[in-house]
Amino acid sequence: MPIREARLRDDLEANAALGAVEGPGHGRTVLTGTDADRAARDQFVDRLEDAGLAVRVDAVGNVVGRWTPDGADPNAAPVAAGSHLDSVPEGGIFDGPLGVYAALEAVRALREDDADLARPVEVVSLTEEEGQRFGGGLVGSSVASGDTSLEAALSLDDDGETLEEALAAIGYHGEGRLDASEWDAWVELHVEQGTRLEAAAVPAGVVTSITGLARCSVTVTGEANHAGTTPMGERADALAAASEFVLDVERAAEARTEVSESAVGTVGHLDVAPNAPNVISGRVEVTVDVRDVDYDSVEAIVAAARDSLDRLERERGVETTFERPWERRPVPMDDRVREAFHDAGAARGVTTTDLHSGAAHDTMHLANVTDAGLLFAPSRDGVSHNPREWTDWSDCAAATEVLAGAIADLAAD
Amino acid sequence: MPIREARLRDDLEANAALGAVEGPGHGRTVLTGTDADRAARDQFVDRLEDAGLAVRVDAVGNVVGRWTPDGADPNAAPVAAGSHLDSVPEGGIFDGPLGVYAALEAVRALREDDADLARPVEVVSLTEEEGQRFGGGLVGSSVASGDTSLEAALSLDDDGETLEEALAAIGYHGEGRLDASEWDAWVELHVEQGTRLEAAAVPAGVVTSITGLARCSVTVTGEANHAGTTPMGERADALAAASEFVLDVERAAEARTEVSESAVGTVGHLDVAPNAPNVISGRVEVTVDVRDVDYDSVEAIVAAARDSLDRLERERGVETTFERPWERRPVPMDDRVREAFHDAGAARGVTTTDLHSGAAHDTMHLANVTDAGLLFAPSRDGVSHNPREWTDWSDCAAATEVLAGAIADLAAD
Repeated sequence: MPIREARLRDDLEANAALGAVEGPGHGRTVLTGTDADRAARDQFVDRLEDAGLAVRVDAVGNVVGRWTPDGADPNAAPVAAGSHLDSVPEGGIFDGPLGVYAALEAVRALREDDADLARPVEVVSLTEEEGQRFGGGLVGSSVASGDTSLEAALSLDDDGETLEEALAAIGYHGEGRLDASEWDAWVELHVEQGTRLEAAAVPAGVVTSITGLARCSVTVTGEANHAGTTPMGERADALAAASEFVLDVERAAEARTEVSESAVGTVGHLDVAPNAPNVISGRVEVTVDVRDVDYDSVEAIVAAARDSLDRLERERGVETTFERPWERRPVPMDDRVREAFHDAGAARGVTTTDLHSGAAHDTMHLANVTDAGLLFAPSRDGVSHNPREWTDWSDCAAATEVLAGAIADLAAD
Repeated sequence: MPIREARLRDDLEANAALGAVEGPGHGRTVLTGTDADRAARDQFVDRLEDAGLAVRVDAVGNVVGRWTPDGADPNAAPVAAGSHLDSVPEGGIFDGPLGVYAALEAVRALREDDADLARPVEVVSLTEEEGQRFGGGLVGSSVASGDTSLEAALSLDDDGETLEEALAAIGYHGEGRLDASEWDAWVELHVEQGTRLEAAAVPAGVVTSITGLARCSVTVTGEANHAGTTPMGERADALAAASEFVLDVERAAEARTEVSESAVGTVGHLDVAPNAPNVISGRVEVTVDVRDVDYDSVEAIVAAARDSLDRLERERGVETTFERPWERRPVPMDDRVREAFHDAGAARGVTTTDLHSGAAHDTMHLANVTDAGLLFAPSRDGVSHNPREWTDWSDCAAATEVLAGAIADLAAD
């Protein structure tokens, strides 16, 4: 039952046209509740219905297409597969949609093959994975797992508009709550967003664990003053202090790679106030992102960041604040699902390898309530969240083959 | 002929009420061409006329009140004094208005004293010193000095409105061009915007030189990438590189203070792209502000900044650009005017001291075409461009006394 590369590619190209951005590469902007989001969802629903799946939409806009194979028990716990259709601003065309349409293609191929399955299969698109408008991301999956209540999710706010209002405006505020705990298993195919598969020339990576993460919010307050009239020795320059902090975080993460090579620490967000060329900065806000599959690394790098702030207060006369509003422990993937991926690759002639995920994925939440697995396809140059994001069509097809095989295996009994 | 503190204070308080902002301190927002600007100008014209001065307005809105003392030659080159009435957003009530109304108070006091003067005296308010809407600031003075043509100034644009249109809208697009080269001398009283006078408990500072300045625009381009999936060793982090640059500039400026203690170097403006917590920054834009009365310091700090960028390109795999779009040489103040300030202080019992100006002032342009001097009054805590800006009324009066004495001295023959 080989999946059909041309059909998958047609789906993905049709999806890529919705919210497409001008310029080089293949860019796409699909933010939750926008016209582009409505168009992407409408097209997905059409293709689910074209394939004969029964479509439902829950209250947070998660879209589910259900296939009950001939001979399967319609009341058995289903195997679910999917990902997300939203994107970051000017993101790529594979991050999310590949997993959604690969799941649909797997179902089409399994049905054409008259696969002998005991369980229904559900193809799922989850709401607001990227967190560009509402909450911190992974919204649909956190509601499906019960980690976030429906009420809390629907009241998430973007500049005065709630998620509930945004979904209603595009016709995707449905009813009830998709409950992932009722699934037998969950599988997600996603692009790697790293270079390990490309470097190894392997089309399908079986994730062993999703990295742990701490997100820290830091402020550095100095004294805004005239850049021309304030002598060097009388300054409390918030940006100079914050610059030391950025480098201390980098140094701590680099040091930790001696212990665990997957450890990373990043300051990607830094805002300066008043941010004028002729004013010494009075306040800087920074967000620190720290990750590793070994949570001890996260703790070690965060501790180094706090030490840095203590030192800066002593040495530079600035005041600092530190908050750790969000963290998550590493999430191991289910052994049964991992084995199903490897077995499917072996059976279908697709090489697979183990690797960890440095990025968060919806599967992280779903793994709390069902047997969950995550499969990666290669990312050219490791690029994602960018119009240069690319995965060769043959790799998309090979990974989808593995996904289909794993679904068949998991749904077989 | 002591000047009258109460009359000066009344002028400044009445001016402070125009464009006043709510909140703690004494804030004022007077941007060129706004209602607040019209009100401030109208009140200034009223007070000039009340004092019997002949008012004219030039094409860029410079307002001049002329007094020809009894016995003076009406055709002699006048002595001019003044400053500006515009402010930064939520700026203070002394920065600018003190120099304008001190000049008016000096004229009133000289006339009441029947001072024996040979030359007319002009009281001047110069347009758009702060550069908040049109051009980079010092607009009125740069036209009066001939550094900027009338045509170029009038066509300066703020979001679709030209300076000419903005001035016409408030009734201050007059005729002709105030020509500072026709003056015998120019004197400006301004707040120090630093702490040297306060620290020395001296009410009047005689500026020796206005600092030289270079403004440099720098970009650092790395590679935007996923903060979770890009190993530490494979990054080209633009913000980490820019952080080293900020610290290199600071270090170079601090080192230069060993040679010239007034040397300063500041990065007050830094923008990160894409500026997302989970994305390694791909591009950072930075503005560097370097100043000293010794221009060799500026050259040395700029050279160190360029060396830093070269090193970052080698060591961090980033690309950088460097531009120096704007610079000005230090401007020494005229010896004759400086002496007039010190003599006036000695004659009237006001202590004076020499100091340099780290900030730009209209006097910088006017010094190119006439004998120019700049006098400072103390700034509490060195604060300016802020509602907390403050100068004690007694210090305002003492500095105005020195200004009046210097005008009398310069206009005496």
